[in-house]
Amino acid sequence: MGGCFNMMLNFHLVVILMLAICGVRHRMGMAKAEKLSLESVEGKVYTLDSVREALIRQEDTIVFGLIERAKFPMNSHTYRGGEEIPGFAGSLAEFVVKNTEAVQAKVGRYNNPEENPFFPENLPPSLVPSYPFTQFLYPKAALVNINKSIWKFYFDELLPLFVASGDDGNYAQTAASDLSLLQAISRRIHYGKFVAEVKFRESAQQYEPLIRAEDKEGLMKLLTFESVEEMVRKRVERKAKVFGENVTLNNGDEKNVTYKVDPSVAANLYKNWIIPLTKDVQVEYLLHRLD
Amino acid sequence: MGGCFNMMLNFHLVVILMLAICGVRHRMGMAKAEKLSLESVEGKVYTLDSVREALIRQEDTIVFGLIERAKFPMNSHTYRGGEEIPGFAGSLAEFVVKNTEAVQAKVGRYNNPEENPFFPENLPPSLVPSYPFTQFLYPKAALVNINKSIWKFYFDELLPLFVASGDDGNYAQTAASDLSLLQAISRRIHYGKFVAEVKFRESAQQYEPLIRAEDKEGLMKLLTFESVEEMVRKRVERKAKVFGENVTLNNGDEKNVTYKVDPSVAANLYKNWIIPLTKDVQVEYLLHRLD
Repeated sequence: MGGCFNMMLNFHLVVILMLAICGVRHRMGMAKAEKLSLESVEGKVYTLDSVREALIRQEDTIVFGLIERAKFPMNSHTYRGGEEIPGFAGSLAEFVVKNTEAVQAKVGRYNNPEENPFFPENLPPSLVPSYPFTQFLYPKAALVNINKSIWKFYFDELLPLFVASGDDGNYAQTAASDLSLLQAISRRIHYGKFVAEVKFRESAQQYEPLIRAEDKEGLMKLLTFESVEEMVRKRVERKAKVFGENVTLNNGDEKNVTYKVDPSVAANLYKNWIIPLTKDVQVEYLLHRLD
Repeated sequence: MGGCFNMMLNFHLVVILMLAICGVRHRMGMAKAEKLSLESVEGKVYTLDSVREALIRQEDTIVFGLIERAKFPMNSHTYRGGEEIPGFAGSLAEFVVKNTEAVQAKVGRYNNPEENPFFPENLPPSLVPSYPFTQFLYPKAALVNINKSIWKFYFDELLPLFVASGDDGNYAQTAASDLSLLQAISRRIHYGKFVAEVKFRESAQQYEPLIRAEDKEGLMKLLTFESVEEMVRKRVERKAKVFGENVTLNNGDEKNVTYKVDPSVAANLYKNWIIPLTKDVQVEYLLHRLD
């Protein structure tokens, strides 16, 4: 009986996730919508549908970010350690990210639980009255922040894949475009917390034993849907083609369309980092879900 | 004889400008290319070709910026005057723009003559060694800055055209996306200085009498090519369609494609503000070109 129930639940979850992530518009009747409305306090409502839509929209922002960073060459001066800036022990990029995060913190960016700073230490408090953001996450699990890993792969591995070598002196603009892209990637990966919370509320019975057993592998298996991941990668590659195309008034005539960023880089960003790290965030979140 | 020469020059200019702005790749032989290479000091070279390419690439950034700002509702709290932030006499948007410009100034953003700050007063000096940017502009004309007009039309007229009403509390993110878009629009409009300098060097004989006579209307007439402007608007509208499309894996099937930003808004941004203000910058620049 229990096994059959679990199987059905599992199947149900797969179907919902396929619909949730594959981009097929998933229209529901009011009764179903109410059931899936997992949070009804005032403000934003997190449902499988809304989480799916947010993830898909964030792909566009990430692809735009890749294209905009590719406008500049590597400008490696931006990333040099040592005291490039008098009194600041770090690179120009660190200076720009740290100080811009501080500016945005003062007007409340990190009051929104969807946002995670890269330099949470010594972040100044918000100077504006707090907006009543929906408190959807489980507080003891909400603090997961893997921005250190994101920072590392972004500069060490991702940038060299799609940025031309060279130096055009636009270090501030380069660092600003790094920040935008880092923030977009970070938001996407940490959205895993919301995905995990939605999934947990949907089928707590399935997750609880694995969480109590601290069974990371079991959780990872439960969160992995190869075919869905493949679809996400394909869609992202398609977006990189569409958004990265050099649009002219007579594109129809062109045989050799060129792209501002190799579309396979966008797909590989998802394959090698965004998808696995999102699952890491989900597992990490779930492990604290019963604290 | 003089009239005929002027006519030929004028015709030559129209042809080059058509090629320069309409997006048709304008390949030149080496002899011609050398002639048009107007600056040969080390660093960036400004030619009709490079200016054209920069303007076209900037369209993409502006369209991305519109789409990214449209992710957020109006969030009018961001623009409210009064002391929203203790000790700061301005809106949250002003706070974010002013302070982020200060961060970027410290790492040298405004050393590049293509960049123009919105709050040039009290901008901190750059803390990093200056990069040898090509000094292409005529120094006495280079300081033209119409960011006050850009700021005004952006918040008063443009935003209400494409941003949904509502408040989601993301004021910092909203102001950050305003800043990116404002910077992109400002760079595009102030690129008029480079356009004007290229044109002036190409046919000084034609411009000098109008400049000496301070004939604004005459200069404006010389800088106006209705058909080219129409082509730019059409291309921008096309870009807004391509980049603003909701891309799925089976777009081919869709009948009613929806856009994240009404493509006519992007075209009208060019028609009503970017094109006329770029010409204002050109005229203003040229009026100081013989100082």
